[in-house]
Amino acid sequence: MTFDDALAKAASLDAADSLAHARDRFDIPDGTSYFDGNSLGPLTRASRETIARTVEHEWRVRLIRSWKEDWLAMPSRVGDAIAPLIGARPGTTIACDNTSINLHKVLSAAVKLRPDRTEIVVDIDNFPTDIYIAASVAEQHGLTLVAVPASEIIGVITDRTAVVTATHVDYRSARILDFAGITAAAHAHGALIVWDLAHSAGAVEVDLDGHDVDFAVGCGYKYLNGGPGAPAFVYVAPRLLAEAGQPLQGWWGHAEPFAFEVDYRPAPGVGRFLTGTANVLSLKSLEAALSAFDGVSMAQIRAKSVSLTSFFVELWGAHLAPLGFSLASPREASERGSHVALGFPTGEGLVERLAEIDMVADFRPPDLMRFGFAPLYNRHSDVVDLVEKLAQFASDH
Amino acid sequence: MTFDDALAKAASLDAADSLAHARDRFDIPDGTSYFDGNSLGPLTRASRETIARTVEHEWRVRLIRSWKEDWLAMPSRVGDAIAPLIGARPGTTIACDNTSINLHKVLSAAVKLRPDRTEIVVDIDNFPTDIYIAASVAEQHGLTLVAVPASEIIGVITDRTAVVTATHVDYRSARILDFAGITAAAHAHGALIVWDLAHSAGAVEVDLDGHDVDFAVGCGYKYLNGGPGAPAFVYVAPRLLAEAGQPLQGWWGHAEPFAFEVDYRPAPGVGRFLTGTANVLSLKSLEAALSAFDGVSMAQIRAKSVSLTSFFVELWGAHLAPLGFSLASPREASERGSHVALGFPTGEGLVERLAEIDMVADFRPPDLMRFGFAPLYNRHSDVVDLVEKLAQFASDH
Repeated sequence: MTFDDALAKAASLDAADSLAHARDRFDIPDGTSYFDGNSLGPLTRASRETIARTVEHEWRVRLIRSWKEDWLAMPSRVGDAIAPLIGARPGTTIACDNTSINLHKVLSAAVKLRPDRTEIVVDIDNFPTDIYIAASVAEQHGLTLVAVPASEIIGVITDRTAVVTATHVDYRSARILDFAGITAAAHAHGALIVWDLAHSAGAVEVDLDGHDVDFAVGCGYKYLNGGPGAPAFVYVAPRLLAEAGQPLQGWWGHAEPFAFEVDYRPAPGVGRFLTGTANVLSLKSLEAALSAFDGVSMAQIRAKSVSLTSFFVELWGAHLAPLGFSLASPREASERGSHVALGFPTGEGLVERLAEIDMVADFRPPDLMRFGFAPLYNRHSDVVDLVEKLAQFASDH
Repeated sequence: MTFDDALAKAASLDAADSLAHARDRFDIPDGTSYFDGNSLGPLTRASRETIARTVEHEWRVRLIRSWKEDWLAMPSRVGDAIAPLIGARPGTTIACDNTSINLHKVLSAAVKLRPDRTEIVVDIDNFPTDIYIAASVAEQHGLTLVAVPASEIIGVITDRTAVVTATHVDYRSARILDFAGITAAAHAHGALIVWDLAHSAGAVEVDLDGHDVDFAVGCGYKYLNGGPGAPAFVYVAPRLLAEAGQPLQGWWGHAEPFAFEVDYRPAPGVGRFLTGTANVLSLKSLEAALSAFDGVSMAQIRAKSVSLTSFFVELWGAHLAPLGFSLASPREASERGSHVALGFPTGEGLVERLAEIDMVADFRPPDLMRFGFAPLYNRHSDVVDLVEKLAQFASDH
C-alpha cells in the first residue's frame, strides 16, 4: 500500500469512526501527534475546567468545608466511575494511591486469605515494580516467589500457590495474557488471582465480574487520562470484602474515620483498602477525565483500538519491515493490546527525533519503540503520518 | 481587657509584625476568617499559578517529555525544600504518598533495624491513623504494641523497645511533647525514634539533625499549605540511609527505575523510600506553596505563633472562660503548638454557626473546638474577631 493509498484508506476509516467526536474532549496542541497514551494520557477539557474549579472554589473559598461537601466521597465515587470500564459492579472499586502501593495491599490481603500456601506466582516479564512488590510480600510472609514467563504461568500453579499476579497486557509487547485461562487455573487450585490492568483499563475489554476475579489494580494516568501521577485503583470481589484485610490500615479505611477511635475497625466494603488522605487535585482531574468515556462502550473502544493497531501493523509490513524494523507485538489483533512495539537498533534516537517534531512516542530498553493508539483521540490519519516519518527518519540514519 | 482594648493591642501587634507581608502570598477570600490551617492550609497565589502552568504547559504541551524535563526530580527537590523547615539537611527528605503510608514505611524499616527487639511504643493519644499503622506493623512482625499517654512514654522505654513513635504536637490539645527527652530516652535504650511532624512542620521549630532523630514523617497540606491531600514527607537520618529498607519497594525507589531490571536494587539515598509514580499536580502545588516561606525563619514563625495563641488565650480568659469555655490546650506557650482547643458543650454547633459567616475552624469529638493560628497569614485582629463572635454566639445558645 502506497502512502497515498494509505491516506485515502485512513480518511475513509476516520470518516466512519463512531468515536471521532470524542477527540474534541481532549486538548491536544495543534501540530502534536501523540502516541503515548499508554504512558500518560493527554489533557481533557473537562480536567482543565475541573482542576480550575477545585482550586478556585473548593479549595480557595470553601476550604476545609469541601471535605464534607464533596471530597470525602471521592475515592468511592471515582472508583464507581472506573468500574464499568473493567467489568466491575458499583461498590467494588476505589481510586487511591498508586499502582505499586495498591498491589502491595491486595497481594498482602491475598496471602493472608491463603495462610497455608507457600508460593506467589508472578509473570517474570511483568512491569518491574509489580515484581518488586510481589518479592517484598513474599519475603514478608516467608513465601517463595515463582517468577516465570506468562506462557508458563498456568503450568506452575499448584496447590502450594497462594496467589497469582500478572499484568493483563504486557507493557513492552502489548501481548494480551490468557486472562480467562490463568484466572481459571488459579481458582482450580484454590489460589487467588490479582490482575494488574495498567494497560487495559480504558483500552482493552476486561470482565472482572464475569471471570470471578479476586483482586485487581490499575493505573489512572494511562488510558484513563487522569493526569501525571493520577491515583490508581483497587478492585476487590464482593465475596471477599467481608474477610479481606490489608496492612496499610489507616484512618481513611476505618469504618468511622471521624470518630477518631483508638482501635482500627475496617470499613465494611472496599473502602478498607484506603489508607490516608485522598489526593484531591489528582482525583478531581481523574474524575473529570473519565467523562471522556461518556456514551462510549468498551466494545467500541476495543474495535477502534484493533482497527488502529492493525492499520499500523499493515503499514509496518509495507514500509517499515523492509527498512529493518521488527514487530515486537503480536501480529494477531486478538492477542494485542492498544500499543504496538517495534524493534530498531537506533530506536532511542528515532524516538528523540520524532519528539523534536512533536510526534511523541516512547522507548523501552534495549531497543523497543512503543506506539500507543488511544481510541478516544488517535486517528487513522495519525497512523499514516507516523509511519511516513518513521520511514523517512530511518532512511536518514 | 475590653474588645476595644484588644483591637488596639491587635493593631499595634499587627503593625509591628515582621511576617505581615507574607499574608499577600495567600489568596484568602474577602470576608473569610480562617482558623483551620492546622487542618488544610489555604491557597497560595504561587500554587494557583504553578498548577495552571503545570496543566497548560507541562501536561498539555510537553506531555510525557515533562518527566525527564522536570517531574522525575520532584520528590527529592520538594523534600529538600521542606528540609530547612524541620532542621534537616539536603538529601535526607522526600515528598511522596501520604503520612499513614510513609509512617508504615519508616516503622517497618525501624523494626527491621532492631530485629532482636519485641516492642513498639506509641502515644495512645496520637492521631488514630498513627496508632492503626503502628498496630499493623507490630502485628506483622510479631511485636507488642505498648500504647501509653505521652507523659508515660519515657517510663516504658526499655531494652525491649525497637522503636518509639509519637506526634510532636498533639492534634487535639496542641501540647508539644518532650521531643528531646523522648528522643534521648529511646536512644539511651538502643531504640529508634519516629516523629510525626504533622502539626509541627511550618509552625513549630523542629531540629531533627540537632537531636539525631532517626526517622520522621509529616503532612504537606496543613501548615505547609500544599493543597487538599498534598503529598506527605519522609525524613531518614543520613547515618541510616545505607542500611534502612522498607517493604513498599516500588520502581521509584529503585537505583535505576528506567533500567527496568527484574531485581530490586534500592536507591542509595532516601529515594529508596519512594514507591510508585509521584503525584505531579499535588507535588507541584506543594512545591509552589513552600515559596510562602521564602525569606522567613522558623524562629520568626514560632515567635508569631506564640504571640497569636497567647493573645487568644488571654482573650479566652477575659471573655470566654466566664461563659463556660474550657481551655483544652496548655496555658504555657512553650508547651503549646500553633492551635488552641477549647471545650464547650455545644462546640460542634458553634463551629457550624461560625462557618455560616465564613469564620472557619474545626471540631473534634467529643466537645473540642480547634482554632489554628498560622503565622504566615493569621493576624492578631483576626483573633479579636474570633473571640467576639464566639462570645456572641455562645451567649445566643
